[in-house]
Amino acid sequence: MKAFMISAIITSTVMGASLINDAKTAGLKPIPANPKSVEKLTSNPNNKTTSAKVELGKMLYFDPRLSKSGLISCNSCHNLALGGTDGMSAAIGHKWTSNPHGLSSPTVYNAVFYSQQFWDGRSPHLEDQAQGPIQAGPEMAAPKEFVTGVVNSIPEYVAMFQKAYGKNVTVSFEKVADTIAVFERTLVTPSRYDDFLNGNLKALNKAEQKGLKTFIDKGCATCHNDIALGGTMQAFGVVAPYKYMNVGDFKGDKNGMVRVPTLRNITQTAPYFHNGQIATLPEAIKEMGRIQLGVDLSEEEIGSIHTFLKSLEGRKPQVVYPMLPASTVTTPKVDVVNN
Amino acid sequence: MKAFMISAIITSTVMGASLINDAKTAGLKPIPANPKSVEKLTSNPNNKTTSAKVELGKMLYFDPRLSKSGLISCNSCHNLALGGTDGMSAAIGHKWTSNPHGLSSPTVYNAVFYSQQFWDGRSPHLEDQAQGPIQAGPEMAAPKEFVTGVVNSIPEYVAMFQKAYGKNVTVSFEKVADTIAVFERTLVTPSRYDDFLNGNLKALNKAEQKGLKTFIDKGCATCHNDIALGGTMQAFGVVAPYKYMNVGDFKGDKNGMVRVPTLRNITQTAPYFHNGQIATLPEAIKEMGRIQLGVDLSEEEIGSIHTFLKSLEGRKPQVVYPMLPASTVTTPKVDVVNN
Repeated sequence: MKAFMISAIITSTVMGASLINDAKTAGLKPIPANPKSVEKLTSNPNNKTTSAKVELGKMLYFDPRLSKSGLISCNSCHNLALGGTDGMSAAIGHKWTSNPHGLSSPTVYNAVFYSQQFWDGRSPHLEDQAQGPIQAGPEMAAPKEFVTGVVNSIPEYVAMFQKAYGKNVTVSFEKVADTIAVFERTLVTPSRYDDFLNGNLKALNKAEQKGLKTFIDKGCATCHNDIALGGTMQAFGVVAPYKYMNVGDFKGDKNGMVRVPTLRNITQTAPYFHNGQIATLPEAIKEMGRIQLGVDLSEEEIGSIHTFLKSLEGRKPQVVYPMLPASTVTTPKVDVVNN
Repeated sequence: MKAFMISAIITSTVMGASLINDAKTAGLKPIPANPKSVEKLTSNPNNKTTSAKVELGKMLYFDPRLSKSGLISCNSCHNLALGGTDGMSAAIGHKWTSNPHGLSSPTVYNAVFYSQQFWDGRSPHLEDQAQGPIQAGPEMAAPKEFVTGVVNSIPEYVAMFQKAYGKNVTVSFEKVADTIAVFERTLVTPSRYDDFLNGNLKALNKAEQKGLKTFIDKGCATCHNDIALGGTMQAFGVVAPYKYMNVGDFKGDKNGMVRVPTLRNITQTAPYFHNGQIATLPEAIKEMGRIQLGVDLSEEEIGSIHTFLKSLEGRKPQVVYPMLPASTVTTPKVDVVNN
């Protein structure tokens, strides 16, 4: 009995160690333990992370006054309480407008690890990305000068920008977006999967390790790789067309490539795919096998991959809800119903 | 010189102590230091405060899935980051509907100290109040059975209700509202004004003390009294009609009485009055003098009262932003655009 147990432990350990090598070979990488490495890996190099920027960026992220209505913040669609998204198949924005392309809101958690931002990958980093939804008519609908008008009308905000960037800072729209991006860099969620890749063989149980093995062996990591298990542009519908491709008019970038979503916290970000037409992970896994890999995954394989995906639920950073400085008489007002 | 200073200190101290008596005589009261006293003073006595209820109530307060669209939470209109309100003259709710009576969202901070809830005072306490906006068509628009359907479809929520109320709890709509109300009880904001009433004579400076004296002497505390400096039903437009009474159709309760808003954190809750038509505190103070007291307050008196009101900015409780449990396949879905 004792000999059997020791043998089982050795087998398990060897399988674990070899699986880590398989994962590395497949291009899978853990979240860097050092936040400075996150900055180095991913950021606009001119925009260093500092605690003053993170704190200010958090306030701006949660401030609905950056939208033309005064009602919608970054957090409305990328809700940190709901896995960094909104649970909608297509995002709803200014004046209750549904996303015109039928696109869902990607999670903000771990988005810093993406090589491209937006479903069509048109943006290189978070600093650039953050400028989009604030201005987009169906999202926050705020012109640049409206946003700078709001921020500059609130002395506490101006003082925080000065603290973050120096006394002579001009609070431009780009600075607002840059600062939000620095906060977003902190939204990374290390999980048991990372602990496993970092050598803690007990961090994933056998069923989860088997799921990771299936995930690699079936080819999922061809697209879902690197730190985010996603984040690059890839061909979509390689073998067969996605069965809900007709919902919305999104067809990828000019080459038909689509930005691969992260699998981290995927249990918390339903519904799935760019147009949010798939409600459950087993169905999403099956559809991916069919249209990307050309395989009809068995129920057992789907279940095994699903088991692995659950282990990607990460440890969220604690976010203290910010207290925002009050508007002043010079803060731009809008007629929220008619404008 | 020395004698003069001592004399000044004595005068100041005597003025402070005598002012505390004046305040007490006028019916002004500090926030109780002991949270249990808050419960005793204010609550539905069947709904005791426990940490399990507070934590669950916070999650429900921030959860947009309690609305029919999945987009609007209690915090959308009673935003804890923005003084417990939304900065709108009239609230905007489900499908971007403006409040049909032109009413603004009252702050949730210190609302536990109100004798009546809602602008027309139709509700006796927070437990009852919380049921209103969740169901109201122009607000969160969720039928009772929708709300209980959502909560009961999420096992983590059911487990938290069991922890809070016992294994055999039925998660009813009323229990959801009761639990939100327990969280709201914790949203009290003691200020320097409370420290002063509790005997710390240095907590308010001379200008603020003078402002408090003016506030009492002019009769403001006739309606703005007790812990909340507001919260009871009072006649509105006693001497002259409110100059924006024609905006919206709100005319008070059946006797024309209006629930007096709290003055705590009033610097953070513009625009003012039930229909949010007054942008600044000096204008609000002037209008109150004219329509309630029949006095034309001088610029100096207005400035002095304004100085006192600023001292009512309270110390907010720290709120860690909750991480909400994921929806499941049985969580009710809605067509957010068409329904």
